[in-house]
Amino acid sequence: MDKETENLPKSIPGKRIGIVGGGQLAKMTALAGLQLGCDVLVLERKSEGPAVNLASHSFVGDWDDPDDLIKLAEHVDVVTLENEFVDANSLSELEKAGHTLFPTSKSISLVQDKYIQKQTLEKAGLPLSPFRKIKSREDVVEVAKGFHWPLVIKARRNGYDGKGNATVNNVNEIDAAWDKLDGDKRTLYVEAFCPFVSELAIIITTSRSGETAAYPLVESVQRDHICHIVRAPAPVSAEITARATDIAKRAVTAIGAIGSFGVEMFLMEDDQIIINELAPRVHNSGHYTIEACVCSQFENHVRAVMGWPLGSTNMVRPAAVMINLLGQSHGSGQPTGFNEALAMPGVHVHIYGKELSMPGRKMGHVTVLGETLSEAEQIAQAAANVLKFGASE
Amino acid sequence: MDKETENLPKSIPGKRIGIVGGGQLAKMTALAGLQLGCDVLVLERKSEGPAVNLASHSFVGDWDDPDDLIKLAEHVDVVTLENEFVDANSLSELEKAGHTLFPTSKSISLVQDKYIQKQTLEKAGLPLSPFRKIKSREDVVEVAKGFHWPLVIKARRNGYDGKGNATVNNVNEIDAAWDKLDGDKRTLYVEAFCPFVSELAIIITTSRSGETAAYPLVESVQRDHICHIVRAPAPVSAEITARATDIAKRAVTAIGAIGSFGVEMFLMEDDQIIINELAPRVHNSGHYTIEACVCSQFENHVRAVMGWPLGSTNMVRPAAVMINLLGQSHGSGQPTGFNEALAMPGVHVHIYGKELSMPGRKMGHVTVLGETLSEAEQIAQAAANVLKFGASE
Repeated sequence: MDKETENLPKSIPGKRIGIVGGGQLAKMTALAGLQLGCDVLVLERKSEGPAVNLASHSFVGDWDDPDDLIKLAEHVDVVTLENEFVDANSLSELEKAGHTLFPTSKSISLVQDKYIQKQTLEKAGLPLSPFRKIKSREDVVEVAKGFHWPLVIKARRNGYDGKGNATVNNVNEIDAAWDKLDGDKRTLYVEAFCPFVSELAIIITTSRSGETAAYPLVESVQRDHICHIVRAPAPVSAEITARATDIAKRAVTAIGAIGSFGVEMFLMEDDQIIINELAPRVHNSGHYTIEACVCSQFENHVRAVMGWPLGSTNMVRPAAVMINLLGQSHGSGQPTGFNEALAMPGVHVHIYGKELSMPGRKMGHVTVLGETLSEAEQIAQAAANVLKFGASE
Repeated sequence: MDKETENLPKSIPGKRIGIVGGGQLAKMTALAGLQLGCDVLVLERKSEGPAVNLASHSFVGDWDDPDDLIKLAEHVDVVTLENEFVDANSLSELEKAGHTLFPTSKSISLVQDKYIQKQTLEKAGLPLSPFRKIKSREDVVEVAKGFHWPLVIKARRNGYDGKGNATVNNVNEIDAAWDKLDGDKRTLYVEAFCPFVSELAIIITTSRSGETAAYPLVESVQRDHICHIVRAPAPVSAEITARATDIAKRAVTAIGAIGSFGVEMFLMEDDQIIINELAPRVHNSGHYTIEACVCSQFENHVRAVMGWPLGSTNMVRPAAVMINLLGQSHGSGQPTGFNEALAMPGVHVHIYGKELSMPGRKMGHVTVLGETLSEAEQIAQAAANVLKFGASE
């Protein structure tokens, strides 16, 4: 990095945010913070990344090294995270050294190990799919006797976008799943497969003073385990919306959340709602809020962790649809079809500015607002269809 | 500056914008460009300023020095401006060296000398208040014989926010005005005072391909010659809106505009519309477009100068009101009343991040959307009332 610590630009005490991670979530958080007059500094493993180019200073270092975390913390008022993988013990060193971190290391410790997350939510009386701790392949067989097939074996840590999960349909598939998930080295747990009819998600922001702001409930459609389309508001009954919102609020309360958290839920055929998992950070299912809500999940995250009052989560138009733009293959971080997409009426194009595209990598997203979901989705889909990353011409 | 040229971060060819100037207009342009995946570099006279902290690289240099301009241009695909004061001859050197500049030096030369600007608009048949070239105090007396009192004596260059203007009510006031404007050293001209009933403004974006996007016509209320309140859309008849929009489009065409331009107009008692002046850049009267329009004046400026299709200028809500936040006295660039303002429903608070407040300095703005102008203005005014820069507690 060319931005040396000793030459750090003048920052404004009380408005300096340090973000651990320099990806697109950090970038969108930074853009919201900058508008409010904040200085944004990031800690990233590499000297490039979506948020690195616009941070007033970027530290290159190891997220899990307390020394690197403290180096960031020393230059800011509040440290926050763009992912849940930073080791909670390292984060607690930062707090012990007197620095301010939100969400807290305690919250992160309750979320980053998915088994502990489920236990915490279960204790709070929240609806979950049955889950069990396992230590061996044999444990899976035992658990299967109490559950129905299929089962889902999951890594307790560092799983995301379907990575770290394996579905097993019968006892013969356990070995392959165990090997795929590297079960001899990683700690795994088992969940009963949840035969949902749709996936719901919601962003709940909790401020340092305990103020809570709930965003509209959305429907989230996954493709290959990665968020593909988000429809806001979710096309479900008012009763389901109210119940899901209540469940999500209780879930973030159980975790002691501060900041914007994403809560993923399953809607079952009998209208039962099951919590899938929590993200202790701004979340892909809330990107639509940048244009669709008075105050975005990113601005409210900044407000929450800085200790400022939260903004309105009301939508400015009746409907919004977001579609993720994933890399198709290895290639440029700049899409083809850019001009064509910009020419479509009302398309908000977000390009994260990653140097390289890779298959399945999140490269950007589009959001369209409208009177109805179908109107918005038609345009968003047309834009997403022409924007290609790494595709051969 | 700690960001050395030799260590410039990797930039994406085809998406690198260089902005001459690092103030709030550059900052808001940069925020729009970053969302589209652009890299933004700035040239500023100091190593600090609202856009400096978020630029991927900031060059410190002299706007009017062709070498400094070319240094910026060498690292970007397109150079643009946040003010009209950069010497058009220096800018033309940049073009002669093969760099891409929008708006062009030709456009800037037609705008930055207000007398030439008026001549250009007059030639295009556009409605103006009578104006005359002057060389001496005696010329003012001569001009007065043909006009009515009062007259306005104006500096031909470098005037803004009322600086460089003096109103003279009779022949006895000429000497004081001449001295105030430093008429022996600066080139001045005279305009007939325009007894308007209200001030109107509009942003027109023109792309490199000639596509034009007109924003809603707004009413702009000045206080001490500085934009104070902007009401969108202007509460005038559809006929006046159509006529003003047409006049503004013809005005930017006469200048050969590329990018977002602000056109300030006077509405007279007899509904006549007179052009006050043009700004060859994003404009204070268009700040409301960030939240109120599908595509803001800043995003459309980026699209225009990069040669991309323009976005929709439609409003997402029926009404929007913007109020400028000016420094009250010397002091901190951070306002008091920040938490109180953020707690007000639907207030969008923009703090530019200037280090110091000075009396009359533009430190930020607030925007509120609503069903009606009066609803939005009430909240915006309440927020502006509590946000104080440099005020003693």
